[in-house]
Amino acid sequence: MAYSSAPTRVMMAVNESSLKSYPHPSISCRTAFDWTLSKLVRSNPGGFHFLFLHVQVPDEDGFDDMDSIYASPADFDQMKQRDKIRGLHLLEYFVNQCHQLGFRLQLEAVASLVYDGLCIYFVSQIKCEAWIRHGDPKEVICSEVKRVQPDLLVVGSRGLGPFQRVFVGTVSEFCVKHAECPVITIKRKATEAPQDPIDD
Amino acid sequence: MAYSSAPTRVMMAVNESSLKSYPHPSISCRTAFDWTLSKLVRSNPGGFHFLFLHVQVPDEDGFDDMDSIYASPADFDQMKQRDKIRGLHLLEYFVNQCHQLGFRLQLEAVASLVYDGLCIYFVSQIKCEAWIRHGDPKEVICSEVKRVQPDLLVVGSRGLGPFQRVFVGTVSEFCVKHAECPVITIKRKATEAPQDPIDD
Repeated sequence: MAYSSAPTRVMMAVNESSLKSYPHPSISCRTAFDWTLSKLVRSNPGGFHFLFLHVQVPDEDGFDDMDSIYASPADFDQMKQRDKIRGLHLLEYFVNQCHQLGFRLQLEAVASLVYDGLCIYFVSQIKCEAWIRHGDPKEVICSEVKRVQPDLLVVGSRGLGPFQRVFVGTVSEFCVKHAECPVITIKRKATEAPQDPIDD
Repeated sequence: MAYSSAPTRVMMAVNESSLKSYPHPSISCRTAFDWTLSKLVRSNPGGFHFLFLHVQVPDEDGFDDMDSIYASPADFDQMKQRDKIRGLHLLEYFVNQCHQLGFRLQLEAVASLVYDGLCIYFVSQIKCEAWIRHGDPKEVICSEVKRVQPDLLVVGSRGLGPFQRVFVGTVSEFCVKHAECPVITIKRKATEAPQDPIDD
């Protein structure tokens, strides 16, 4: 029941927005990340260690490439290279946020000290790691949980109704059932949902 | 994205053990509570405010009272009174834990200061509130979330397989889908599962 001095390892599954061009993270995963920082990490960045996992689906839906003509093996290499860069840019967004926010939280903690005299913090920025995997997101997330053994898995959710879920499936629902660690599901705010709720 | 100075309000649904006599909390909800303290609250008890909700199911299964004979209105009054006392004792367990652990966390934080020089905390014990409601747990939990608007709902889960779930339903699954706030599902450890996994 005592807290361990080792930081709480928070794995976060992140994906790209289906609406905005890269390197924009999806609304759900940005909401989940912001919520985790403000409500769980709070003024204690040294107590948490983020693990960002981005799962790339090989040729997700094909629509992007409807007009493409593949004429040589080099075309495929180029496409793979492009996907890799997109993934790296997405992860870079979260890693940068961790570094910037760590400093900001420290400043705010020091500022709050002036007001309520409660705490003094001398902590470094939020520690994090990030990596890319390929495959079916829900399966890969659960197998990475098994391998990495985080303390907590954070998944954003579009909060789809039962009818919408039938067609798109939900990664979050699968992870709550199958991931071998506590899972937190954070729904997108209703005000942030795009016109088509399946978009993100 | 900045953390607010207001504490994170964590609602926790708690229930009695089906194995041990009262006032024992169930394995799932005790596991969930201990995990939340050690992995989320950590050394920052002043940053969290616990809200314990215990939902009592009117005459849950009747087995306890198979041999009872009800002969007067007073018999029913007595039974209600007994249920109320059981519920209060259960909540008392968690409220006491919050008060005792707040002090312990402070001592540990001060002790860790000696070792790593990271933090100084002068915080009071973990603040909490507790109350009882009656009805179908999953429905009542979601309606209480709507009313109280916590930042986070914590639900323990027995981690039942699909076959077992058909017969007992799962409160946690319903809450993840319907509660209007982020939900964390914490499964009972496999080593702690009783012989019959439906027990708790």
